[in-house]
Amino acid sequence: MKITFTDGNEIEVLESETLYEAFKRQEVYITASCGGKGTCGKCRVRVIEGDHRCISFGKLTAGERDSGIVLACQTVAAGDLVVEIPVESRLTVGDRIAVSRSRDLFELLMAYGKGISPLVARRLVELPPPTIDDNISDLERLKRELLSGGIELRYPRRFVSRMADELREHHWRVGLCYQPDSGKALFLEPPDADAARYGIAVDIGTTTVVLYLVDTSDGRVVDVGSTYNSQMRYGDDVITRIVHATEGGGLNELRKAVVSDINDLLGPLLKRHSIGAAEVESAVVSGNTTMTHLFWGFNPAYIREEPYIPTVNSFPLWSASETGVRINRDAPVYTLPCVASYVGGDIVSGVLVTGMHRNPEISLFMDIGTNGEIVIGNSEWLMTAACSAGPCFEGSGIKHGMRATEGAIEAIRIDRETLEPELKTIGDAGPLGICGSGMIDAIPEMFLSGILDQRGKFVKDSGSKRIRDGEDGAEFVLYRDGAGREIVLTEVDVENIIRAKAAIYAGVSLLLKEIGFTLEMIEKVYIAGGFGNYLDVEKAVILGMLPDIPKERFHFMGNTSVAGAYLCLLSGEMRREAEEVASKMTYVELSVKGSFMDEFMSAMFLPHTDIEQFPTVKSLLPAVRG
Amino acid sequence: MKITFTDGNEIEVLESETLYEAFKRQEVYITASCGGKGTCGKCRVRVIEGDHRCISFGKLTAGERDSGIVLACQTVAAGDLVVEIPVESRLTVGDRIAVSRSRDLFELLMAYGKGISPLVARRLVELPPPTIDDNISDLERLKRELLSGGIELRYPRRFVSRMADELREHHWRVGLCYQPDSGKALFLEPPDADAARYGIAVDIGTTTVVLYLVDTSDGRVVDVGSTYNSQMRYGDDVITRIVHATEGGGLNELRKAVVSDINDLLGPLLKRHSIGAAEVESAVVSGNTTMTHLFWGFNPAYIREEPYIPTVNSFPLWSASETGVRINRDAPVYTLPCVASYVGGDIVSGVLVTGMHRNPEISLFMDIGTNGEIVIGNSEWLMTAACSAGPCFEGSGIKHGMRATEGAIEAIRIDRETLEPELKTIGDAGPLGICGSGMIDAIPEMFLSGILDQRGKFVKDSGSKRIRDGEDGAEFVLYRDGAGREIVLTEVDVENIIRAKAAIYAGVSLLLKEIGFTLEMIEKVYIAGGFGNYLDVEKAVILGMLPDIPKERFHFMGNTSVAGAYLCLLSGEMRREAEEVASKMTYVELSVKGSFMDEFMSAMFLPHTDIEQFPTVKSLLPAVRG
Repeated sequence: MKITFTDGNEIEVLESETLYEAFKRQEVYITASCGGKGTCGKCRVRVIEGDHRCISFGKLTAGERDSGIVLACQTVAAGDLVVEIPVESRLTVGDRIAVSRSRDLFELLMAYGKGISPLVARRLVELPPPTIDDNISDLERLKRELLSGGIELRYPRRFVSRMADELREHHWRVGLCYQPDSGKALFLEPPDADAARYGIAVDIGTTTVVLYLVDTSDGRVVDVGSTYNSQMRYGDDVITRIVHATEGGGLNELRKAVVSDINDLLGPLLKRHSIGAAEVESAVVSGNTTMTHLFWGFNPAYIREEPYIPTVNSFPLWSASETGVRINRDAPVYTLPCVASYVGGDIVSGVLVTGMHRNPEISLFMDIGTNGEIVIGNSEWLMTAACSAGPCFEGSGIKHGMRATEGAIEAIRIDRETLEPELKTIGDAGPLGICGSGMIDAIPEMFLSGILDQRGKFVKDSGSKRIRDGEDGAEFVLYRDGAGREIVLTEVDVENIIRAKAAIYAGVSLLLKEIGFTLEMIEKVYIAGGFGNYLDVEKAVILGMLPDIPKERFHFMGNTSVAGAYLCLLSGEMRREAEEVASKMTYVELSVKGSFMDEFMSAMFLPHTDIEQFPTVKSLLPAVRG
Repeated sequence: MKITFTDGNEIEVLESETLYEAFKRQEVYITASCGGKGTCGKCRVRVIEGDHRCISFGKLTAGERDSGIVLACQTVAAGDLVVEIPVESRLTVGDRIAVSRSRDLFELLMAYGKGISPLVARRLVELPPPTIDDNISDLERLKRELLSGGIELRYPRRFVSRMADELREHHWRVGLCYQPDSGKALFLEPPDADAARYGIAVDIGTTTVVLYLVDTSDGRVVDVGSTYNSQMRYGDDVITRIVHATEGGGLNELRKAVVSDINDLLGPLLKRHSIGAAEVESAVVSGNTTMTHLFWGFNPAYIREEPYIPTVNSFPLWSASETGVRINRDAPVYTLPCVASYVGGDIVSGVLVTGMHRNPEISLFMDIGTNGEIVIGNSEWLMTAACSAGPCFEGSGIKHGMRATEGAIEAIRIDRETLEPELKTIGDAGPLGICGSGMIDAIPEMFLSGILDQRGKFVKDSGSKRIRDGEDGAEFVLYRDGAGREIVLTEVDVENIIRAKAAIYAGVSLLLKEIGFTLEMIEKVYIAGGFGNYLDVEKAVILGMLPDIPKERFHFMGNTSVAGAYLCLLSGEMRREAEEVASKMTYVELSVKGSFMDEFMSAMFLPHTDIEQFPTVKSLLPAVRG
C-alpha cells in the first residue's frame, strides 16, 4: 500500500506497521517526543483520503478528529492513503535561530585569536616509491617521512590494513588524516580530496538534542537540527533516567535512544546537503553529566548515590565506532568535560562561550534548561552549583509547551483593561504552542493583570472570560483558531513554572550566601537555555526567576551547550580551555545544605515571599493592584 | 544419533554432518591437514559398529577398508556408531619434544640476565574511597593514584565502562592490568586474583602451527599443541597463498583458517587445564612475513611483486579482539618483527634464540622449514637471505611424510649387506610416517647403499627387494606391518627432498659469496626447523644440504620461531632486542642474482656436482661404492 503526501511525494506502508513506523523507515521525519507510544500527541497528521484504522486517538479533540487528524503512531493503513503533514508535526530541520547565531560564534572564536584546529588534522604526504634498494615496509616508509616532519603516531590495525592498497592507488601521494591530540593515524585519502571537511557539534540535553553540521575547514555551519531527546519516554528528568539505567538493559536502551536521535537528526541533514556519513570525520558532544554518561554507555548509578561521583569528568578521545553514531567510524569524538555529578559539560561549554573565565569582573552564568545550573566567578575562580528546575522551560510537562522554534508563542502582553492577550510567535507564524520565553512573559502578565494571585492560582473573579475549568483543572485560554484548535495554560502548568523558577532563584541565593557575596557584586549575568532569542528580563524578575538587578547587566546567550561544542569542534585551544575551566571550577553540593529547602519554599511565590529582595517589583505592585 | 568412542566418551552426530564435522563441533580433535576435503587421508577412524555411509574412501587400501577404517570427513552416520580413533589420527595435544625444551628456554632467558616482564603488567591499586569533599570522578581518582607512581595510561572506553562497578565491588582495592609499552589500561581484577597469568606463544608456520600455553608469572610452559596450518588447503607454499589472498574473499579465508587453527589448538589445552579463555591475557605470534600479514588480515600481494615490499615489518601492539583468536579480547598481541618480504619474524625469533647477535664469532643460522632462510653474522652485523625450499621436511608433499611427533620415523640405518632398513621412531612407537630428520637419514643411507644414484633415481638392480613400482612410480618400502599398512618413500619424494636441499645449499653458497666469506670462517652453524630433537649432521652433509664443515660446529635448535615467541612473551628486553635485530639485518634478494640458478642446479645431485666442496663425502664414496 502507498501513502501519497500533499506535496506529491509517495512512500510505501506495510500492513504490519503504523504510519509513524513507515515514515521513519523511509526517512520522513515527524515529531514524536514519546518515540511512538501514543502519549505525547505530537505526531498529528491529517488523512485526507483512504481506509485506515486508529488504535487510539490520545487527547485529540473532537474537532480535530472530525477534520481527519490522527496520531501517526496509532494509525494503520487499510489501503492507499493521501496524507497531509501539518507544519507543527514536521521535524524542523534547520533551526533558523541557531543558524543565525553561528556567524557570531565563528566571530567569537576568531576574536579569541585562535585559528581553526579541528580534531582531525590533514597532511599531504609524498613518499618516494619503494625500490629493491629502498625496500623498507610501507608503514616504515610512512613513519620515516612523518618523522622528518616531527610527527609520531599510533597506527590502528584498520589503518594499516588499507594502507598498502591506498598508497599504491594514489601513487605514493596521499592525504593523511590523523588526530594530533592523541597521536593516532585515522585514514588516508586521495591527495586532491575535497577541501570541505565535516564535523558535528551536538548538545545532548535532557529534553532536547541539538546538532550543528559544520564544515571544519572554514567554520561554516552547514545546517542545524534539533529534536526531543527520546530518552524522555523513560522519564523527564535525569533522576528517573538514572533509575531506569540501573534496571536490566535500561542503560543500553537509553544509550540507543539518544544515539538514534542523533542519527535521525543527522540523516536528513546529510541527505539534503549530499554529504556521505563517512565524510563526517569528527564530533563533539556536550551535555550534563548524566547525559554524557548515558551517551558513552557508562552506568550513571553513582551519580545519584551519595557522595555523587561520576565515572569520568575528563573524557579521553574515543572513536565514533564506539558510540553507534553513524559518521566515519574512525572519527574522534571529543566530550566536553564535566565538573561533578550535577554540573556537566554543557555548563563548561557555557562558561567557554561567555568568556567569563577570561575576565576580571565577577559574572553569574545561569543555564535554565531541564536542570538549572549556575556558575559565579571570574578569571581567578569559578564556583558552581546545580538546582533541579525541571524541563518545563523546554516545553516538556507543559500542556501546550514546545521548543523555541517557528510557531512558538515567545511573547505575551495582556491588556490591563480588557484582560485580552496579544501574542507574538517565533517567525510570526500561526501559534502552535508556547515556549520558555513565552511562559516567562505570560505568568507575570497574568499576575500583573490580576488573573493570577501571588501563589500562582487563577483568580476566578478577575473578570477574564478566558479562565475556565478544563480537564486538568483551571486553565487560561491563550489562543483559539477558526477550527477550534486551542492553546491554554493550566494551573498545573503555572505551578510547574513557579516550581522551576523557585529552584533556580534558591540556587542563586544560596550559592551567593555560601561564598559571601551579594547580588550587587555581580557585574554580568549570562543566561543560557531554550529561550531562543527573546527573554524579557523585567518579566523574569517579576516572575522571581532572575534576581532584581539592573537590566543592562543581563546577556542572553541562547544554547551555549551546542555553541561550546561548536568552538571545541574547531579549536584545539578551546578544547584545552574547556579542560582548564572544568578543573578550575569548584562544585558546591546545594542538596546537602539544610537551608536549601527554606530558600526554595520562600521562592514559591510571585515574585518571592520576601518582597524586599525585589524592589523593582515591589514598586510595580501597588500601581497595578491599587 | 550418537557416537560412542572406545574410551567410553559419547558425542552426538546429526544426519546432515560428517563425522569430522560432528567431532569438530563437539571438540573432539583429529588430524585433517586438508581441512575436511577428503584429500589428505589423515582423518582415518575405525567404525567398529553401526550403519554409516562413505562419500569416498580416498586412498585407503583394501586392507584398511576391510578393517573398518573410513575417512571421518567422508563418512555420514546412519545410526548410532561405535568408533575408535587410531593414535595416528589423534591431534597430538602436547608435543613432548617441545615441552622438554621449554625448561632450557627459560634458562636461556634467565641466562640473558633478564627478569620476567610480560606484555601485561599488573599493579595493586588502593584508592581512597570518595567523599563529598574528595569527589573527583572515578577515572580521575585512578589517574591521580597512578601518577603518584609515575604511571600515565590511555583508557579505552571498554575499560572505563566497567570501572565504576568494579572499583566499588572490590572496595577501591583492585589489580590494574595494563600494557606498559603502549601505555594502555586493559582491565581491572580482584585484588586477590590468582597469581598465575596466562599467555600464548604461537609459531605460525606455512605448514604447521605450534602453540605454547605459558604461565607468564613464572615462565612455566603449561602445555603445547601443534597442528597443520589449514591454509594448506589453499596451497602448500607462500606464493600460492598470496595468489589466493588476492582473489575475491581469499584474504579473509586465509586469515580465518589460521585463526581457527590457533583456536582449535588452544581450546582443548584450556579445557584440559581448566583455564578460561579470558584468563589468557597476552599473546606473541611469530611467522614468516606472509603468514604474519595473513594473520593480521593484510593484503600480501605486494610481498610477491617486485620490489617485494611488506605492508609492515615492525608491528604495533594490537588487541586480540582484532584477530579473532579466542583469548581475552583486550589481550595485547606482540608480533615478531619481519625483515623483508621473505625473511620474517620467525627468523628474527631464531636469531634471538641462538644469541648470535650478541656474540663476536661469525655464525650461520639456517631455518629449514617450508622456506629456507639463512642468516650470517655476529654482534656487529647480520646478513640474511631466503631460498624457497618447499615444505617437504615438515612432512608435506611427501607420500608418508609427517611432522616430528610420536610415531614418526626419525632415523634410518640400511644394512650394507642385506639392504634392509632399521627404523627408529619418535617415542619408539609403531611407525606412522616419516619426518624431516628421517628423510635426511634415509636418502644418504640409500645413496651409500647403492639403492639411489647420484641423481636420486632408484637403482633397480641394486639388489634391494624393497624397490618396486608403485602408483606414483618407483618407490622404496620402508615399513610394512602385519595388517598390510605400509610406509614408502617414492622417487617423487626423493626428488622433492633433493630439490629442497639444493635450494638451501645454493642459498648458503651464494650468500657467502655475496659477502666474500668462505665456509671455514663460520664458527657456529645453528639449525632450526621441524626436525624434532634429532638430525644426523653427517647424513645431512652427505645429502648435500649442510656444508661440509666440522661436525662440532653444528647446533640443533628445534623450533626457534615458537621459542623466540616464548622469550618475547616473557620479556620486554627480548622484545626490544627483537626489534633491534630486525632493523639491523641486511636482506639480500637472491632471486634477482643471475647466479642463483647455477648454484641451485649444481646442488641437484648427491651431494653436489662439485664433489670437491664435500671432501668428507668424497672420502666415503669410493669406500662404499668400490
